[in-house]
Amino acid sequence: MKYTELSPAALQAEYEKVLAEYEGWKAKGLKLNMARGKPSRQQLDLSNGLLTVLSDGAECVDEGIDARNYGELTGLPCARRYFADVLGCRPSQVFAGGSASLTLMYDTVSKAMTHGLLHSERPWCREEGLKWLCPSPGYDRHFKISESFGFELVTVPMTPDGPDMDLVEELIRDPKVKGMWNVPKYSNPDGIIYSDETIRRLAAMKPAAPDFLMIWDNAYCVHEFDGDFVPFADILGLCEQYGNADMVVEYASTSKITLPGAGIACFACSEANMKYLTDLMGIQMISYDKINQLRHVRFLKDRAHTLELMKQHAAIMKPKFDMVAGTLEREIAPLGLAEWNRPKGGYFISVNTLPGLARRTVQLVKEAGVVMTGAGATFPYGKDPLDRNIRFAPSLPPVEELEQAVAVFCCSLKLAALEQLKK
Amino acid sequence: MKYTELSPAALQAEYEKVLAEYEGWKAKGLKLNMARGKPSRQQLDLSNGLLTVLSDGAECVDEGIDARNYGELTGLPCARRYFADVLGCRPSQVFAGGSASLTLMYDTVSKAMTHGLLHSERPWCREEGLKWLCPSPGYDRHFKISESFGFELVTVPMTPDGPDMDLVEELIRDPKVKGMWNVPKYSNPDGIIYSDETIRRLAAMKPAAPDFLMIWDNAYCVHEFDGDFVPFADILGLCEQYGNADMVVEYASTSKITLPGAGIACFACSEANMKYLTDLMGIQMISYDKINQLRHVRFLKDRAHTLELMKQHAAIMKPKFDMVAGTLEREIAPLGLAEWNRPKGGYFISVNTLPGLARRTVQLVKEAGVVMTGAGATFPYGKDPLDRNIRFAPSLPPVEELEQAVAVFCCSLKLAALEQLKK
Repeated sequence: MKYTELSPAALQAEYEKVLAEYEGWKAKGLKLNMARGKPSRQQLDLSNGLLTVLSDGAECVDEGIDARNYGELTGLPCARRYFADVLGCRPSQVFAGGSASLTLMYDTVSKAMTHGLLHSERPWCREEGLKWLCPSPGYDRHFKISESFGFELVTVPMTPDGPDMDLVEELIRDPKVKGMWNVPKYSNPDGIIYSDETIRRLAAMKPAAPDFLMIWDNAYCVHEFDGDFVPFADILGLCEQYGNADMVVEYASTSKITLPGAGIACFACSEANMKYLTDLMGIQMISYDKINQLRHVRFLKDRAHTLELMKQHAAIMKPKFDMVAGTLEREIAPLGLAEWNRPKGGYFISVNTLPGLARRTVQLVKEAGVVMTGAGATFPYGKDPLDRNIRFAPSLPPVEELEQAVAVFCCSLKLAALEQLKK
Repeated sequence: MKYTELSPAALQAEYEKVLAEYEGWKAKGLKLNMARGKPSRQQLDLSNGLLTVLSDGAECVDEGIDARNYGELTGLPCARRYFADVLGCRPSQVFAGGSASLTLMYDTVSKAMTHGLLHSERPWCREEGLKWLCPSPGYDRHFKISESFGFELVTVPMTPDGPDMDLVEELIRDPKVKGMWNVPKYSNPDGIIYSDETIRRLAAMKPAAPDFLMIWDNAYCVHEFDGDFVPFADILGLCEQYGNADMVVEYASTSKITLPGAGIACFACSEANMKYLTDLMGIQMISYDKINQLRHVRFLKDRAHTLELMKQHAAIMKPKFDMVAGTLEREIAPLGLAEWNRPKGGYFISVNTLPGLARRTVQLVKEAGVVMTGAGATFPYGKDPLDRNIRFAPSLPPVEELEQAVAVFCCSLKLAALEQLKK
C-alpha cells in the first residue's frame, strides 16, 4: 500500500518499524561506495592484456612512426582510424589524445574563452553574460566546467527522447547562448538514448551565436550491458548535412572500455575545426602519449573486436543493475515513493523520489555508511529544483556489498518519506 | 686566416672554391634532420624495460591504490615522491601529470588567463597590455605560448651566468610584467647553467605584479652528457626563504630520460599554489594516466638510479656533441665566423655567427637537404635582432649522418659569409 494513503496511526507504526531497521543498519558500521561510475576490479582485469601488448622497442614503430619519440600532434594514424571506426566518422575528423575526454572538453571550452572558436568574432572572455544549455538531470562534471568558466547555466529538462527540443530551439535564439552539453547515448544519469528526431533537430539547429558549440559526449557509445550494440547516428555527418559542420565537437574515450586511469580519448570534428583547433593545440603540446594509443589499437583492434570486450563487461555489469532495479521494484514501487528508468547501457540508474526526499535520503544513507552521489549533483549549481533525483552508480561494489547498499538506500528512502508524511 | 682579413682577390678565390664545394653537397640530395631535440633510437631503446615493468593487474596496485581506476588528481604518491627526490623538494609540492611538461606550463598560463592565479586580483584576460620576460636566445615553444595568449614578449639578453639580472630587476617594476620563462640548467639553446647569484637574485625578486609567475622549466635537471651530475638549487625552498613561495612553479619531465612520446611530467610549487591550482584542475580532469606514472617509478626508482640511466644516454650523446664542436673548432674557428658554447648537458649547441649570417646560412643548409631549427626561432616573435643565432640539435641523427650535416653547415656558413663580404 502506498505511504501517501496510510492513516496517521499506520504511518506512525511504519515509522517506528523503519526507524528500528535503519538503526540496525547504522549499527553495522558499513563502509560502502556507490558514488561514481567506476568500473569494478573484475572489469579492469579484462584489460590486463593491454599491459603487455607492446613488449619491445621494435613493436613501437607503426607505419614508419616511432611512437616512442616526439611528433604526431593529432595522434597516431592507427588511433585516428580506430576512433573513426567506433564513431562512424572519417579518420581526418579525429584527434587522438590522452587518457581523458573530460580534459579534451575542458580544453575546447578553455580555448574558446582565450582564443575563440573557428567562427568567433572574438575570444569568449571578451564577452559578458554568456549562457550554456544543460540538459538535466545531467553529468555534474560537465556542469562544473561551464560554471567554472562563468557561464550562466540554463536548465533544459530531459524527456524520454532527450532534451526538450522545443525549449532548446527557443533558447538558442539568444546569441548569448554559446553551447550545450549532450550525452546522447545512455545519458548520465537517466540512461536515455536521444531519439532520431531529437538528434535530427539538434543537428539542424540554427543558433544565433555564430560560434555555438554543441558538445557531443559519446561517453557510452558502445557501452551496452543488456542486449546487443545499439547503432547510433554519426552526428558529424548529420550536422554537415544541415550546413552545421562546424557546430559540433564529439568526444569519446576508452575509460570504460579498458582502464579509466590509463585509457585513451579523442575528439572528432569537421576538418575545418580540426585545422583551427590543432593550430592552437600545437602551442600546448607536441603530442599526447602515443605508446598508449598504439597499445590500445593493438589490443582493441576495431569496433567489432571492442564490442566483444564490451560483452564481457556486460556479463559483470548486468547482474548488478538487475539487482538494484529488482530491489527497488520489490521494496519501493509498491509504496509509491519513487520512479526510475531501466537502461540497457551506460553506468547509472537515475531514481526520482517524491518531491523533497532526495537530499534527506542521501544524508541518511551516508550516516549509515554508504556514499552515493550527492543529491542535486545532477543539476546545474548542484540544485535539484524538486529535490528528487538520486544517481545510483552500481558498477564498483561487488554484488554482496551492493545488496547491502541498496537495502540501506531503500530503508533510508522509506524513513525520509515517513519523516515528511508525519509532519 | 680570418675571412674578414682576406683581400678582395683572395675572397673571390675562396668564394669560388666554397661555392663548388657547396654545389657538390647539393648534388648529393641529402635528407638529414637536426631541427629538434629528439633523442635517437639508440636512446629510446634504453627504456624498453619500461614497456614490460607492469605486466599484470595485481602489479598495478600501489599503496592500496589501483592505478588502473579513476582517482588521485595530484598523481600517485610514489610518482610525487619520485619527482620530489629528483628536484629536491617536498612530495606535497609535486603534481604528477601526463606525458608533457609543456602542456602543464601552457595550462598554468591558460588558467591565469581564465581564472587568475592565487594572488591575482582578476583573471588576466581582464587586463590589457600584459608583458612576459623572455631570456633570449631561448626555447621557441615557450615564446609561442606567451605570444599565443597575447603577451608582449620582452627580450632579456642571456649572459654566461643566465639572464641579465640588472635588466630583469628593472623590468619587473612594471606591474604589467606578469611572468618570465627560465630554463635554469643547460638553457635551451645556450646550455648555460644559471649561476648561484643569478638564482638567488631571481628568488629574491619583488615584482610589482602580485601574481607574477616565474616559470622554472627544469627540463634538463639530470641531463649531463659530459661528466658527473651537477647539483642544482631547490628553487621552491629558495623562493620560500625570500618570502616568495608562491611566485614560482617548477616543471620537469622524463621525456628525455625515458620516452619523449610517452614519459611522465610534473609541476612543483608551494602547497598554497597546489591547493589553488588543483581546485581548478579538478574541474579539468579526474587524473592523468597513473599506470604510466607507476611504470616510471618502478623503472626509474629514484634519482640515483635515474642518474645511472643518464650515464647511458651520455655515452650515446657525448660523441655527437664532441663531433659537432670538434668540426666547428677545426673548420670555423680559424676563419673567425662564429662562436659557440661547449655545454656539458642539455640537448643543444648554440652557435652565434657574425651578424647577419644566420638566416642565410640556415637557408643554404636547407637547400642542401639538411633541416635545422629555423634561424630566429630562439628569439621572441622568431626575430633575432642581430640575425646570428643558430641552434644545433645533434641528438637524433646517427654519427655518420651528423658528420655530413655538420660539414654542410660549415660549408653553408662559409658561403654565407663570403657572399656578405664580397658585397
